[in-house]
Amino acid sequence: MTTDRPITYKDAGVNIDAQDEALSRAKSAIRSTFIPGVMGDVGAFGGLFDPEAAGVGGQILVASADGVGTKLEVAKRAGVFDTVGRDLVQHCINDILVQGARPLFFMDYVGTGRLEPAVVGDLIRGCAAACKDAGIALLGGETAEMPGLYADGDFDLVGFIVGSVKRESLLDGSKVAPGQKLLGLGSVGLHTNGYSLARKVLFERMGLDVGDCPAELGGRSLGDALLAPHRCYLNELMPLVEAGHLAAMAHITGGGLLDNLPRVLGDTDAIIDPTSWTVPPLFQLIVDNAGIDRNEANRAFNMGVGMVLLVPPDHEAAVRAHLASIDEPVFDLGETVAGTGVVRWSDE
Amino acid sequence: MTTDRPITYKDAGVNIDAQDEALSRAKSAIRSTFIPGVMGDVGAFGGLFDPEAAGVGGQILVASADGVGTKLEVAKRAGVFDTVGRDLVQHCINDILVQGARPLFFMDYVGTGRLEPAVVGDLIRGCAAACKDAGIALLGGETAEMPGLYADGDFDLVGFIVGSVKRESLLDGSKVAPGQKLLGLGSVGLHTNGYSLARKVLFERMGLDVGDCPAELGGRSLGDALLAPHRCYLNELMPLVEAGHLAAMAHITGGGLLDNLPRVLGDTDAIIDPTSWTVPPLFQLIVDNAGIDRNEANRAFNMGVGMVLLVPPDHEAAVRAHLASIDEPVFDLGETVAGTGVVRWSDE
Repeated sequence: MTTDRPITYKDAGVNIDAQDEALSRAKSAIRSTFIPGVMGDVGAFGGLFDPEAAGVGGQILVASADGVGTKLEVAKRAGVFDTVGRDLVQHCINDILVQGARPLFFMDYVGTGRLEPAVVGDLIRGCAAACKDAGIALLGGETAEMPGLYADGDFDLVGFIVGSVKRESLLDGSKVAPGQKLLGLGSVGLHTNGYSLARKVLFERMGLDVGDCPAELGGRSLGDALLAPHRCYLNELMPLVEAGHLAAMAHITGGGLLDNLPRVLGDTDAIIDPTSWTVPPLFQLIVDNAGIDRNEANRAFNMGVGMVLLVPPDHEAAVRAHLASIDEPVFDLGETVAGTGVVRWSDE
Repeated sequence: MTTDRPITYKDAGVNIDAQDEALSRAKSAIRSTFIPGVMGDVGAFGGLFDPEAAGVGGQILVASADGVGTKLEVAKRAGVFDTVGRDLVQHCINDILVQGARPLFFMDYVGTGRLEPAVVGDLIRGCAAACKDAGIALLGGETAEMPGLYADGDFDLVGFIVGSVKRESLLDGSKVAPGQKLLGLGSVGLHTNGYSLARKVLFERMGLDVGDCPAELGGRSLGDALLAPHRCYLNELMPLVEAGHLAAMAHITGGGLLDNLPRVLGDTDAIIDPTSWTVPPLFQLIVDNAGIDRNEANRAFNMGVGMVLLVPPDHEAAVRAHLASIDEPVFDLGETVAGTGVVRWSDE
């Protein structure tokens, strides 16, 4: 070691030029998301948003933070970096949608070991594309290069979302009562949960890789199936929220049906008919090879149900008519009964 | 490998019980931050905040996302986990304060390899304590266990803040003009930037550890000096914002004085007198042993100046009087001149 040689910031593993390059690669995609309400430009200390200009003055704010989890490991294995940003945004949208909120703006955080501008650019552009599709602003974000904390090539991706809801449309659990229908909407895959278990079963135990096409998936590659972006339910469900047709919604994420539905049950139980939907082949493949039981499976994965609606009887016809009008299949999962906030299977 | 043994979620490295324990350890600290405006309780899908109830209806929202960077590595080395949450919250507060915003709520994200409830509890309680001190709500968060992505014992900590500002108090750079005074306020250490370089110099090149007390620090241990929490300027500066005394502020974070001040300079340059403040011993120790020059040092570190105020001449007396009344030392850094948004040293 020569103590005379200067140690620069770059020597210490932090490359500010690479950060600038990553941001500049994403800037036009970020700007394309700027809806009415956004003030200022990319690069200010904080992002500015005017609820009055966005037409949501006086509404209640709903905020959520989330990550993509180890779906990132699948993305790295497949070398695909433009879908996980969409996963993150759409997951966050659903998380506030279940309280009745329409999303306003989103912020991202990328933590990396060594910043690769192309990868970070893909991550942020993926977020921006999903924001644009949903009509929300990508208002800002942070990219941090942390050699030592993350290994080279490793990164984490975190998102924050803020939306708003009119007082009278807020879904805070107070409208939940016994005798409400539980209607399920399909997921398009694992969404962003259960990947640690899925990877262990598929990659370690079964020895598969992302390029393999197991017969159960009907010719689709495992990487493609595992990386299918988290479905966004905003456009399908916002009309039902605004019409006041729903008592509550549960976004089926980490903890599955068994741990997420209780978050809105209050003084009811949910009686679920396990035959009311068909578990998609990807879940069946994982669960069969993991050798786990129904309860464990429905805690680790969404098992094909990405969103559950709690519908008061006098709104049921309107809800079904709306979902039919947009060709959205519905699972008749069951109903609520007086109880203590647990999910029970109808055959137990 | 026995293919008959079930692989559970816990086998895959995800321990939902540990997540619940970490949350339960922090719940009362989180609830203690609930200011008027917070609706609902810990554990809903999204956090609810009513700006009208908080008395900030009609204001502009200012949002920011940030991390603690590799200060986390110092915290791990020292086994101290209750200060970095404060770092994060106070960094985020400053980032929106510079646009004139008073913080409303904060959300945290902890990503880990293996979730240790005591550590995660400390991290979240640190955030909660800083939120409580600043009078803002810790509205929610996410803890993700991601074996493989983070090594055992490794974690990242990310924060997201939302504040609000009255239209007439917004600092968006439009009030910056030539002939304004640049007043600096002291930092209390590295805050949350430059730790990759600092660690390389102090721990690798100099062979020091967190328990060492280099003579330059006057008996203080290196760990103590390096972990001093990021200073929060909210209470000192909000009265100046609300009185309309400031043209702009720059929070000196990653990129130092040389990269942060330009973010608000617009069509001016900043002429800085390098002798206008005394660089604190911790910075001098690092810079001397890194062998880097003044410009490199002032890009990697705050060098003792944590916040810069841009003050129009007719408000200067009032600003100085306020800062004197709270015993806040002021560095007369220099002033703005017509220019192109760069920082120049007065002796060059």
